[in-house]
Amino acid sequence: MNENYYGVIMAGGVGTRFWPMSLTARPKQFIDILNTGETLIQQTFNRMTRVIPPENIFVVTSKMYANTVAEQLPAINVDNILCEPIRRNTAPCIAYAMHKIALKNPKAAMVVAPSDHIILKEDVFEEVILNALHAAVHNNWLLTLGIKPSRPDTGYGYIQFDESDTNDGEGNIFKVKSFTEKPELDLAKAFLQSGDFLWNSGIFVWSLPAILEAFTIWLPEISQIIARGKAWFYTPDEQSFIDKAFPTCKAISIDYGIMEKASNVYVHRADFGWSDLGTWGSLYENLSRDENGNAIVGKQVMAYDTKNSVIHVPNEKLVIIQGIDDAIIVENENILLICKKEDEQKLRFIVEDVRRKKGDKFV
Amino acid sequence: MNENYYGVIMAGGVGTRFWPMSLTARPKQFIDILNTGETLIQQTFNRMTRVIPPENIFVVTSKMYANTVAEQLPAINVDNILCEPIRRNTAPCIAYAMHKIALKNPKAAMVVAPSDHIILKEDVFEEVILNALHAAVHNNWLLTLGIKPSRPDTGYGYIQFDESDTNDGEGNIFKVKSFTEKPELDLAKAFLQSGDFLWNSGIFVWSLPAILEAFTIWLPEISQIIARGKAWFYTPDEQSFIDKAFPTCKAISIDYGIMEKASNVYVHRADFGWSDLGTWGSLYENLSRDENGNAIVGKQVMAYDTKNSVIHVPNEKLVIIQGIDDAIIVENENILLICKKEDEQKLRFIVEDVRRKKGDKFV
Repeated sequence: MNENYYGVIMAGGVGTRFWPMSLTARPKQFIDILNTGETLIQQTFNRMTRVIPPENIFVVTSKMYANTVAEQLPAINVDNILCEPIRRNTAPCIAYAMHKIALKNPKAAMVVAPSDHIILKEDVFEEVILNALHAAVHNNWLLTLGIKPSRPDTGYGYIQFDESDTNDGEGNIFKVKSFTEKPELDLAKAFLQSGDFLWNSGIFVWSLPAILEAFTIWLPEISQIIARGKAWFYTPDEQSFIDKAFPTCKAISIDYGIMEKASNVYVHRADFGWSDLGTWGSLYENLSRDENGNAIVGKQVMAYDTKNSVIHVPNEKLVIIQGIDDAIIVENENILLICKKEDEQKLRFIVEDVRRKKGDKFV
Repeated sequence: MNENYYGVIMAGGVGTRFWPMSLTARPKQFIDILNTGETLIQQTFNRMTRVIPPENIFVVTSKMYANTVAEQLPAINVDNILCEPIRRNTAPCIAYAMHKIALKNPKAAMVVAPSDHIILKEDVFEEVILNALHAAVHNNWLLTLGIKPSRPDTGYGYIQFDESDTNDGEGNIFKVKSFTEKPELDLAKAFLQSGDFLWNSGIFVWSLPAILEAFTIWLPEISQIIARGKAWFYTPDEQSFIDKAFPTCKAISIDYGIMEKASNVYVHRADFGWSDLGTWGSLYENLSRDENGNAIVGKQVMAYDTKNSVIHVPNEKLVIIQGIDDAIIVENENILLICKKEDEQKLRFIVEDVRRKKGDKFV
């Protein structure tokens, strides 16, 4: 395995989109949401180790999840668990990992990935990542992985690529023309039809020199704030430096801060069964379904006259469903949610309402 | 209070119609199903004490519920808890209580009532019972209480009365012409329209001599089997006698065994907000409902875009319902049921299916 290859897993999210499965105390990345026996961060870590030595993998997370990360990833070097004292979006998070890695290995090439996505075809993922790392090592490119869209999804960001500007032998790496935030349905349909757009996976590949240079050009303050602490990195004083310095970084995404501005941005087209699992609908798509189209997680669920529902309940609970179609039925930690699938987008308002009326203990 | 008045509460039911609220280990009569602060048997007992001295009230129940009865009715004389070793329908149950009371007070008049019905207008109930007891003491009548029907309910038995044969000053006691089991809807509608039919409440009022005579005529074997044990009644040997004798009685209802056959059967018309709470639908009718028609028991239920549903969940559980109309949502003892109200009649098959697939522990 190439010792210059490094991985950075971003695991600071506190997403409530999967509420009540995902709670602030244990967000989605720490849940075995697909009932496979591994949590999403475990899947992400194990997937990376196909290409990257385990000791080269870093996880950036919130302080409150540091223990959970250590528990769930016994193979990780605990020095590689980086704790953000406060959330500052992805750019400061990546800058922190970047400078940590720079101290270890100036010849590093890095894969940066969210901790809570799923990828079904791990062998294809491995190929793509190796290809992208190889390209990143030999070019001063900032690579992002773009997923071949299969439907006009309005929940994803899109990347427009320049088909004429193919930069690898297999025709899978293209120069990026533009990034688009989540589009309206009509626009998404047009994107899909044009063939020039890919879903933005939020997985990045670049060499250390390339990303250092990009920060120096586009986000110099953030890079400098973190770099000032290098003397304390890998010492007992690192955390107290970060606790003071990190909050002074502005909160900005790597997409907005660098990828949308830099001219050396390329996309590696990929098709490896990816989902950001951002919605119950996407979870439903990724769970195996019975003959009635029900996606059931839970060992004692008995469904009668029930179709196309997603049911996610504890194994010890007997759950009887009679005549409820197209529903989301979830129980976790003494919270029960019963919701029509079509109303899923109302969940964020519901969660806010719960927070307002019941306080934080249920969120 | 008249010391000749006695009460018999029948509390041996193991009904699963309210499953999973009602479980074999704790059936409906022992549950505060209306969330009033009292279980149904507590309500029944307390209602009786408006007319009957507490020490004159007997409860006939299954052995397995004897402790529950004693716990829930601290005012009861524990000698008055009669334990059936096996269920034998209502006639043997009533014969047992009858002979126990006969030993105490040959001048007794008795009210016999199920333990799991509700009566909203307790002052009207008190009036009716006093009137019926008075009539029973002065006549050799077997009285049953008939409820003025408010809808063509197909879940109740009906009593046809002879309007011309009014036997009390207020015109509320009539000779019974016939009993009808649960009718089809068309017949129930005809019953309602005719004005000659009342719902059969299963509440009986009679003097001890009248019911003793009726048993001697119509069910002599049952009466004799029980009467043979009189020497052991109120002694430590009573239970072992009953354990042997009771199962030798044939299983038969008092309705079929006596009331439908005897010629001295009268009905006292009444209208005191009665329901046998035999269905979730009837529970729904009897629970208070919010502005969206939802009947909610549970302190932390938040319902959005949800109408006409009955929700019965533990107070400590946060339950969020979004967009689910006309449903029954019940959680009890690690069992969750979600069912359309219109499918309620399928519940008994579901409960049987649960018993078959999961064994008795969930039933």
